[in-house]
Amino acid sequence: MADKKMVEEITSMDVDFAQWYTDIVRKAELIDYTSVKGCMAIKPDGYAIWENIQAELDKRFKETGVRNVYMPMFIPESLLEKEKDHVEGFAPEVAWVTHGGLEPLQERMCVRPTSETLFCDHYKNNVHSYRDLPKVYNQWCSVVRWEKETRPFLRSREFLWQEGHTAHATAEEAQERTEQMLNVYADFLEDFLAIPVVKGRKTEKEKFAGAEATYTIEALMHDGKALQSGTSHNFGDGFAKAFDIQYTDKDNTLKYVHQTSWGMTTRLIGALIMVHGDNEGLKLPPRVAPVQLCIIPIQQKKEGVLDKAYELRDRLKASVRVKVDDTDKTPGWKFSEAEMRGYPLRLEIGPKDIEAGKCVLVRRDTREKIEIGLDEVETKVCELLDTIQKDMLEAARAHRDAHTYVARNYDEFVKTFNEKSGFVKAMWCGNRECEDKIKADLAVTSRCIPFEQEKLADTCVCCGKPAQKMVYWGRAY
Amino acid sequence: MADKKMVEEITSMDVDFAQWYTDIVRKAELIDYTSVKGCMAIKPDGYAIWENIQAELDKRFKETGVRNVYMPMFIPESLLEKEKDHVEGFAPEVAWVTHGGLEPLQERMCVRPTSETLFCDHYKNNVHSYRDLPKVYNQWCSVVRWEKETRPFLRSREFLWQEGHTAHATAEEAQERTEQMLNVYADFLEDFLAIPVVKGRKTEKEKFAGAEATYTIEALMHDGKALQSGTSHNFGDGFAKAFDIQYTDKDNTLKYVHQTSWGMTTRLIGALIMVHGDNEGLKLPPRVAPVQLCIIPIQQKKEGVLDKAYELRDRLKASVRVKVDDTDKTPGWKFSEAEMRGYPLRLEIGPKDIEAGKCVLVRRDTREKIEIGLDEVETKVCELLDTIQKDMLEAARAHRDAHTYVARNYDEFVKTFNEKSGFVKAMWCGNRECEDKIKADLAVTSRCIPFEQEKLADTCVCCGKPAQKMVYWGRAY
Repeated sequence: MADKKMVEEITSMDVDFAQWYTDIVRKAELIDYTSVKGCMAIKPDGYAIWENIQAELDKRFKETGVRNVYMPMFIPESLLEKEKDHVEGFAPEVAWVTHGGLEPLQERMCVRPTSETLFCDHYKNNVHSYRDLPKVYNQWCSVVRWEKETRPFLRSREFLWQEGHTAHATAEEAQERTEQMLNVYADFLEDFLAIPVVKGRKTEKEKFAGAEATYTIEALMHDGKALQSGTSHNFGDGFAKAFDIQYTDKDNTLKYVHQTSWGMTTRLIGALIMVHGDNEGLKLPPRVAPVQLCIIPIQQKKEGVLDKAYELRDRLKASVRVKVDDTDKTPGWKFSEAEMRGYPLRLEIGPKDIEAGKCVLVRRDTREKIEIGLDEVETKVCELLDTIQKDMLEAARAHRDAHTYVARNYDEFVKTFNEKSGFVKAMWCGNRECEDKIKADLAVTSRCIPFEQEKLADTCVCCGKPAQKMVYWGRAY
Repeated sequence: MADKKMVEEITSMDVDFAQWYTDIVRKAELIDYTSVKGCMAIKPDGYAIWENIQAELDKRFKETGVRNVYMPMFIPESLLEKEKDHVEGFAPEVAWVTHGGLEPLQERMCVRPTSETLFCDHYKNNVHSYRDLPKVYNQWCSVVRWEKETRPFLRSREFLWQEGHTAHATAEEAQERTEQMLNVYADFLEDFLAIPVVKGRKTEKEKFAGAEATYTIEALMHDGKALQSGTSHNFGDGFAKAFDIQYTDKDNTLKYVHQTSWGMTTRLIGALIMVHGDNEGLKLPPRVAPVQLCIIPIQQKKEGVLDKAYELRDRLKASVRVKVDDTDKTPGWKFSEAEMRGYPLRLEIGPKDIEAGKCVLVRRDTREKIEIGLDEVETKVCELLDTIQKDMLEAARAHRDAHTYVARNYDEFVKTFNEKSGFVKAMWCGNRECEDKIKADLAVTSRCIPFEQEKLADTCVCCGKPAQKMVYWGRAY
């Protein structure tokens, strides 16, 4: 009975998806709540996932010439106010510092909700000539947005992220960088997190405060809701004009720089949970999993069992992130726990296995059991981890495709959103009124105007006027 | 003439050490000032040093079982106030957040100056049984202390650091961890940063707010001032009692945990500058240097020169962090710049060298020129980097030893501090009055009670009463 205890406490995802999510986040020990309302503590198993995300993304950034920096966490109010759209977007949701030590500040400062203004201030002082360009900077830090409703990883008052901020000599180069980073993000999600995405552009209504254009990658969660998983913005020269960032070009004339910014956050951990998890718990793709293989000894008190488990660990640890669960819990409990924590593979080994020169591997994704010889452990484990990574991406893609619908008129559109849950592809006239109506009617927003366009109909799904673009619509986190 | 421009702007360290420091920090492009008073922007070349420090320290932490986590950046006032000494130590220098969005907060919060209170709050909720212990957590983050006077890296209102926070079943285990981490710090400074340190315990007057005992590593800067470079605190069960962190032990009784904390900061970059730098600029030990070797082509427009430079880079890049300076500046300018930025080695190669099958290596630390054959580049570069690392540590140790004095009575003590600059070893009675008098008379503080004690005299250097301990005294940053 005790063996079942860990999983019994999880709500089934079909009964209450939100509760299932919260249960996993707690039972897999990813976070804990804190005395700071709306802020979470990221526990070791949660933070280890973020460290793997960070290391891989950072490597990919640097391959494209990105350099890391660190800017202050505070923004003086007058600096935040320099770009009009930007301050309007962020001022209502920032935390304000008004006192330093025992004295009131001369000017209050907010804790950064994002750092465009600080990077602009820096570039203004550090960009003088075309030789100083491009600047391709990034920082890893935490930011604060005073949200009313919060959920672990998905929306919290403080979260961890990276924010890239670049300055370029030309509009073309800025646009190239904007798209390049969106592609880095999309490839990262597919290759590393096994999450397929739709790439596209945000509508004017949904774009970032102060941007000329915002690009996004949108992923579909298991419940059919969308999660914006990374964004890349082209600012044109709007911020450069507001902050007066000019350089002397080769032709000796003064020109404004063109800027971009792009970011991904600890939300990605939420995406991992909601794309891959199931009623047994978390299910981590091998590449991002802090523990890829958990060795569980059976009858571990019998002579030689633990030794064999450690021997296997030592053989594997050069190529695989491996641990032995040698606690005094029962094997059944350990199996449940390994499933809850989402380890991609577990290896079971007991006295009989050792005698027969074999062991059993169990895949977390399919729960398939595979008997293998002890002499082939290294090869088989590595092969299986590769297979699991691929299969998890395919499973997520199949789920996404099965939950992507087409609507050609408003009846179909409304019916689909009332009966199904997922992306709906539909034509759009390009007017904000239709977006507003759709949001009011169905709590649905435009997720993106995908790069891969299809012509589904001639008219807008909402107003019936001539269509401009195909749009992905969905309910979103 | 232009070749000299970069170095001409540096103040000589003998003329004005503080200005020399500021010049290096700016000219080596480590930081920039910002619109946020007292907060700096860490530029790519400065941040790359921090990334190397972080990666190496993090690896060493994990080898001792440390796990990384992330706690909120805010501390509600009531939480900060739970431990009396702690709040008294920090409340006068914290930044207060009073508004979230457009509304005043019900309770104001400070931005963490350090996170003992948050970790205690977490441990209170997560430690129940002896099975939950030890907790050996660390976080990498930024903290804020509202200092009146600030200097880049050495004292700024916001700085980056790591803070380890542990909870243990017994007092012995806590003391072991406190000393273990101090040793990790000391070894790291010596092995990686080539900075020798004195290890010891802080006096009661100088210990951390809320600690039972504080241990420190103290390094000596080129100007003879001390820099506290890392601290490790044993809290005993003081915080555990204030926060009620109890666990059920094997004997089924409730016991308080014993805690430690330990931290190192971006100050270390200041230490690197002030221990190793010279009038030509920064001088980085190879292990921490983001660029270990800079290849400078001579007459780079001549056919084959740049190609050979790139070929050498490609041969070396698997084992060395290498770059080619292929900008259109003159070689002389490039030499000065390589020295300013502190690259441990530069490699000069021109048409004649290529013809002769050789090139020239120049050590940054000794400025020695070494001619080597092109076929032995890999071996020689790696050997030389090892030698430089060792020699820099030895040079720093020799400087420290030459500036460590002994005083047996107060006349000698005063005379030494009036005439010399460095550590002074002297006996102490153990009373705070003597520390206060010494500080008032000479602006000198007790740096530590070193683990390696010597008996220099029978009486306190200040009051003449029986001596308890030998103490390192110094003027400090």
